[in-house]
Amino acid sequence: MRYCFGIDVGATTVKMGLFNIEETDAELIEKWEIETDISEHGSLILKDIAYEINNKCDQKNIKKENIIGIGIGVPGPVNSSGVVKKAVNLGWGEFNIEEKLKSLTKIYTKAGNDANVAALGEMWKGGGKGYDNIILLTLGTGIGGGIIIDGRIISGAVGAAGEIGHMHINDQETRKCGCGNCGCLEQYASASGIARLAKTRLKEYNGISALKNKNDVSAKDIFDAVRQKDDLAVEIAKEFGEYLGRALADIAVIVNPFVFVIGGGMSKAGEIVIDYIRPPFQKYAFHACKDTKFSLAQLGNDAGIYGAAKMVL
Amino acid sequence: MRYCFGIDVGATTVKMGLFNIEETDAELIEKWEIETDISEHGSLILKDIAYEINNKCDQKNIKKENIIGIGIGVPGPVNSSGVVKKAVNLGWGEFNIEEKLKSLTKIYTKAGNDANVAALGEMWKGGGKGYDNIILLTLGTGIGGGIIIDGRIISGAVGAAGEIGHMHINDQETRKCGCGNCGCLEQYASASGIARLAKTRLKEYNGISALKNKNDVSAKDIFDAVRQKDDLAVEIAKEFGEYLGRALADIAVIVNPFVFVIGGGMSKAGEIVIDYIRPPFQKYAFHACKDTKFSLAQLGNDAGIYGAAKMVL
Repeated sequence: MRYCFGIDVGATTVKMGLFNIEETDAELIEKWEIETDISEHGSLILKDIAYEINNKCDQKNIKKENIIGIGIGVPGPVNSSGVVKKAVNLGWGEFNIEEKLKSLTKIYTKAGNDANVAALGEMWKGGGKGYDNIILLTLGTGIGGGIIIDGRIISGAVGAAGEIGHMHINDQETRKCGCGNCGCLEQYASASGIARLAKTRLKEYNGISALKNKNDVSAKDIFDAVRQKDDLAVEIAKEFGEYLGRALADIAVIVNPFVFVIGGGMSKAGEIVIDYIRPPFQKYAFHACKDTKFSLAQLGNDAGIYGAAKMVL
Repeated sequence: MRYCFGIDVGATTVKMGLFNIEETDAELIEKWEIETDISEHGSLILKDIAYEINNKCDQKNIKKENIIGIGIGVPGPVNSSGVVKKAVNLGWGEFNIEEKLKSLTKIYTKAGNDANVAALGEMWKGGGKGYDNIILLTLGTGIGGGIIIDGRIISGAVGAAGEIGHMHINDQETRKCGCGNCGCLEQYASASGIARLAKTRLKEYNGISALKNKNDVSAKDIFDAVRQKDDLAVEIAKEFGEYLGRALADIAVIVNPFVFVIGGGMSKAGEIVIDYIRPPFQKYAFHACKDTKFSLAQLGNDAGIYGAAKMVL
């Protein structure tokens, strides 16, 4: 029996998975969480993880030589040698994660950025299964992106590859994005972005709409109302889709993925989200890219541990 | 002594290079051209190339076992197995280039798209030397792009990666691009694109400008006039740079290259072209990408044979 670990480090919890390797595939046999201890500039996080791994091996009678590796995803840019530049949410500065965790566990370790690692997970066992060129879009408070080409994570020169939430798509915008620029994609097409679009339209809208009765309109409210054929909600969804579809058409002529996998909080609204992204995408896409597929993410919060494990397989 | 061949197939000529391999590097020791025979649906092209290779080996007394491979770039999409989808300028339909040329020469062959292969050449010995994440922009009649990540060519699902001339960047455009869409980057930022911008502005311009005396204003005329501080030419160059810089800022958050290498006819104007691209790029770029480098392509028409050779090294 051979094993590996997949670890997904978040600002509040560390998700851990033990995988049983069978030939070229692997299966998640146990998963658990620990709290992320961000005290002392996060210097205890890898020690806690090493303790859990060593403990799990003892408990399961797994010999270290039967563990082929540990994959770990962290919320910050990581280069191809395993050096994290900075992970503000963990209190981390620059250091080599792979060397550090290997020295604590005596197990080969591979590290990556959490959004990229989640994309690898969705490629392996989720919405991108069967393809080796995929892009995972995480539509949450912001927009995260993970790009997998020929089965490998694209990190880029300074780990900024996949930061597609910061594509510039609107010259008219005067409000600033969190990044300091104006007119970034995530100002319109994230969960908070679409809520902001709704707020603006609600002020001007004189018709009847279910959205008028809400204090704070959420992305979920909007797509619930779209299902009820609420005119205002449909308009908002169209505006959201126009921005996102056009941006994805540009991404398609740059890296040309087989499939865009839509994840994050907004993907919980289901296929209806894709129904509003695909038509503008096809309108703006280069002819060779018009058939690019769209799918929903399938692994939810487990995408990170799956992708982390896949890194060492 | 070990050798390899780098071949660049164009619609009018086939450029060929013989390289001498020294450890992990190689040096171009001879280059020559033959005419591209596009008769009979281009079915003679690979035969002519094989004849030249076999001939060169005899002439130089090079034994086949000392040739590590043939790299070949062609004007059409090529997948990772060496299958070309279609190369309209050569009359080619779908077939496996690598298998075909190998059967004709008994030498291992690797094939790729010509724009991507040229990018690999510029990475190896040209404007991207020292970096393994680069993008080559070929600003000619259209805009070609080649994307190299971690030293490998990005081809994409259907070979459309790097078609950045067809990023959609202007919603207001009513004239169609050659691809059938409206508002594509190459309608503004190619050599013909900037000439078109000039034409439009010349109609409305009442001031004095050297460009007014020309029948057909070319990209070269514009940058020559920019050097003379011609107001109209400076305005046109700024508009060109605004379109291109903004598009490159979007590319930077998607694949995050170390360097953008500017090639093609327009790059002959020199560093001044970059002077008009960099400021808008930096204005729109995500903070982590603002320091992305710009350089001029250095290999000219030889980029293809260098890149082709690099594919088999």
